[in-house]
Amino acid sequence: MSQEKISQLKQKLSEIHDVNSATSLLIWDQEIFMPPKAAEGRGKQLSTLSTIAHQMFTDKEVGDILKSLQDQSGSLTADENKLVSETCHDYERAVKLPDAYVNEFALERSHAYNAWVEAKKHSNFKAFQPHLQKLTNLLHRRADYLGYEGASYNALLEDYERGMTVESLKPVFGRLAVEQSEIVKKVAHAPQPDFSWLAQEWDEDKQWDFTMRVVKDLGFDFESGRQDKSVHPFTTEFDLHDVRITTRIRKDDLFTGLMGSIHECGHGLYEQGFLPQDARTTLGKAVSLGIHESQSLMWENIIGGSLAFWKHYHADIQKLYGTQVKEVSAEQFYQAANRVQPSFIRVEADECTYNLHVVLRFEIELALFEGEIGVEDIPAIWNQKMKDYLGLDVTDDAHGCLQDVHWSQGYIGYFPTYALGNLYAAQMFERIQSDIPKLWDEIEAGNFSVLLKWLREHVHHVGRRMTALELIEHLTHSPLQPDAFLRYLKSKYGSLYKL
Amino acid sequence: MSQEKISQLKQKLSEIHDVNSATSLLIWDQEIFMPPKAAEGRGKQLSTLSTIAHQMFTDKEVGDILKSLQDQSGSLTADENKLVSETCHDYERAVKLPDAYVNEFALERSHAYNAWVEAKKHSNFKAFQPHLQKLTNLLHRRADYLGYEGASYNALLEDYERGMTVESLKPVFGRLAVEQSEIVKKVAHAPQPDFSWLAQEWDEDKQWDFTMRVVKDLGFDFESGRQDKSVHPFTTEFDLHDVRITTRIRKDDLFTGLMGSIHECGHGLYEQGFLPQDARTTLGKAVSLGIHESQSLMWENIIGGSLAFWKHYHADIQKLYGTQVKEVSAEQFYQAANRVQPSFIRVEADECTYNLHVVLRFEIELALFEGEIGVEDIPAIWNQKMKDYLGLDVTDDAHGCLQDVHWSQGYIGYFPTYALGNLYAAQMFERIQSDIPKLWDEIEAGNFSVLLKWLREHVHHVGRRMTALELIEHLTHSPLQPDAFLRYLKSKYGSLYKL
Repeated sequence: MSQEKISQLKQKLSEIHDVNSATSLLIWDQEIFMPPKAAEGRGKQLSTLSTIAHQMFTDKEVGDILKSLQDQSGSLTADENKLVSETCHDYERAVKLPDAYVNEFALERSHAYNAWVEAKKHSNFKAFQPHLQKLTNLLHRRADYLGYEGASYNALLEDYERGMTVESLKPVFGRLAVEQSEIVKKVAHAPQPDFSWLAQEWDEDKQWDFTMRVVKDLGFDFESGRQDKSVHPFTTEFDLHDVRITTRIRKDDLFTGLMGSIHECGHGLYEQGFLPQDARTTLGKAVSLGIHESQSLMWENIIGGSLAFWKHYHADIQKLYGTQVKEVSAEQFYQAANRVQPSFIRVEADECTYNLHVVLRFEIELALFEGEIGVEDIPAIWNQKMKDYLGLDVTDDAHGCLQDVHWSQGYIGYFPTYALGNLYAAQMFERIQSDIPKLWDEIEAGNFSVLLKWLREHVHHVGRRMTALELIEHLTHSPLQPDAFLRYLKSKYGSLYKL
Repeated sequence: MSQEKISQLKQKLSEIHDVNSATSLLIWDQEIFMPPKAAEGRGKQLSTLSTIAHQMFTDKEVGDILKSLQDQSGSLTADENKLVSETCHDYERAVKLPDAYVNEFALERSHAYNAWVEAKKHSNFKAFQPHLQKLTNLLHRRADYLGYEGASYNALLEDYERGMTVESLKPVFGRLAVEQSEIVKKVAHAPQPDFSWLAQEWDEDKQWDFTMRVVKDLGFDFESGRQDKSVHPFTTEFDLHDVRITTRIRKDDLFTGLMGSIHECGHGLYEQGFLPQDARTTLGKAVSLGIHESQSLMWENIIGGSLAFWKHYHADIQKLYGTQVKEVSAEQFYQAANRVQPSFIRVEADECTYNLHVVLRFEIELALFEGEIGVEDIPAIWNQKMKDYLGLDVTDDAHGCLQDVHWSQGYIGYFPTYALGNLYAAQMFERIQSDIPKLWDEIEAGNFSVLLKWLREHVHHVGRRMTALELIEHLTHSPLQPDAFLRYLKSKYGSLYKL
């Protein structure tokens, strides 16, 4: 009886997963291949499919199956009980959102996205403003539907980083703002390495081939995924065996494409690493966006930004670019990959300044959502904060508050997970180094699989069996804290810039 | 009241269209980008979405709306009544198919497709045989659900070419088999032009660029569509403004890519040509597969295979390939584009032999479906018929009965529409030539828009306001007949090969 119900539940989840996969493919295609005039139709397709998936999941039958399984918890395995409780968690949130709301939200996201694309093109925040206002209103309704304790922004955070609150984030982000700003200032006053060799043209095909090779070396399975080019790199999955990453190659920059590929590969390895028996169910999913980001950032910054990594690839990259890099040592590649340079654009920011971009967005979102500022105030506040945190004068909104796609997608409360990714990664990595004492030797020898194996076992295979905060506590015997990350930054950049 | 119901109907159709668009994108991606291990998951996604679309369309609410609109036909416009009657036609067929059957069929199609890919790779019909048997059984059930008069195969024909029957096809195909075979024999015995210049390597990028240019010249809107490469060229659409065509470039063949592009462009122009007010409804769809094929074949063979076409592009193609074609005249390109050469593969067949490939498949399908032969008999019968019709000894099943994807998709009754496309195109084209007396001058000057304008007005904008047989009768004041096509063949090849 309970086994029959478990099968029924898995069947339902599997069908919902299929619809969500189709939605993800529609988005993937929209970012990479869709012709321009198709935007309106695509918006309708996305809103229809979102509504269908929501209707399927909130169907009374799903509720009945879950209820019946909760009543029989004694006859279920631990995994089955976890599947039931996690699905109940999602179900209880989902049923609070009316179908009409889900449809309206999806449709407005699509309008706002198209408006944002145009507004960014012309660096005209005013053209995007009414859409951001509408989305903000819709998100307030969402928060009211879902309920929250403390700040209303907590209801949004809960979607991306369950259990995270404004109250717990504020002190953490406060320390990051102060201590990272200090490091950035020290670096700015330190003697700079010679980066002049970077100012060359780098063949795009060679760059592409090298990203493909590195991604493969790191363990990404190209039989179960692929890499393409897109304006904004991203990762998506349609199935455990269909994980798609993208990258962006720039002729004038040797690192954007490679580091972007490694970053998305980190996400992709996580998506390819769920247990096959969890596939198409609630357990075979990322525990949180912050943990997802810890995977991409660990591979990109801690590994891709390590001296061992560059020592490993030094001979190959010298062969690839020939005379262009003949005089450039492995140490110089390492320095260049970790160059600190305050800049306008978050996705191009280095590791030292990155969290400051996040803190800025968090503060603006929070003020907006709690009603302390209006949508129209954003450009001025953005520009002031960029001056305060990074010492930069923003030239126009395209390089300022219009740069990110997130708000046009209604993703408010999402940015904090990027900084959390850095913190989780650093905290986890201290444990990894103690578990694998010879890790850097392995990396220098190109044996990335030792790290992947650890992550598979301790993070990927877990799926949603723990929450992010439980996982980090379980792995590091400590709650989330910024110390490991700040230790890592101070040590790495202290040595790089001889601070 | 009736307007409210019309809006409700359009809303329902629009949402079903969205789900079908997502399905089409899943298939498009499967053919072009999907990584190999994703096949199983993709099959599940496709069957889930097919089932959802079927459930949405056969929902009692749709039936109630249609019934209520039928009762109010007096207060509807002619277009609205047509929308209602065409949707009723589809609805009445759809409700005859149980959800479970639709799901089972979609799932088996996906298994059969994967088995066919493998079977073809190893030229092993036996590995595909059980799947074809299963699909044949499923199609028999389909015919029983749907009902039919005369041959049970008529139930399948009805899906692709409404109103077409075995009884009306047999005499037409009989004449084609006899008279086309005669032409092919005569050509084989005629003195052959010098085709030796064709045996060169043709740069793939140049070929690709040329197909892009020609497709654009013919009128394909790249703001509302795109072209990609795939192993088997095809056309699909997700929206009036998102029509996708594909082509296949071969280094050893100058014409495969180009003619394939023009063929798919013909399909694409049809899909881009429905009236905007019909979009996302039953009326904004192809009237039949035969009419769809008339569009691709007219552009490919009648236009792309005309002397005027090659005179127009002669200077450009000489510039493109330089010394490779320095001595080749427009007439020689024209001859080469229309080279008659019996071959194993239908999709590579020339216009003279093409219908013979179709007649062969029709005869086998019919015999199989009516129980005169078993699935296991197919390879031997196939090979015998290839010998009889084209004088060829089939070397292996990969080049014989395993060559086409159709059967693995459960598409039995589909092949006849290809030959019907040739007949419709020729019959229509006689009318076009009388309406546009200077057509060939226009083509030679590169003014393809005069033809496109005619097709838009007389075929594309019609959508499903007429059936194929009504449309051809309306346009040519004659029922479907093979005479126009045979006249066209005899005149064109009589002159090309001086018969």
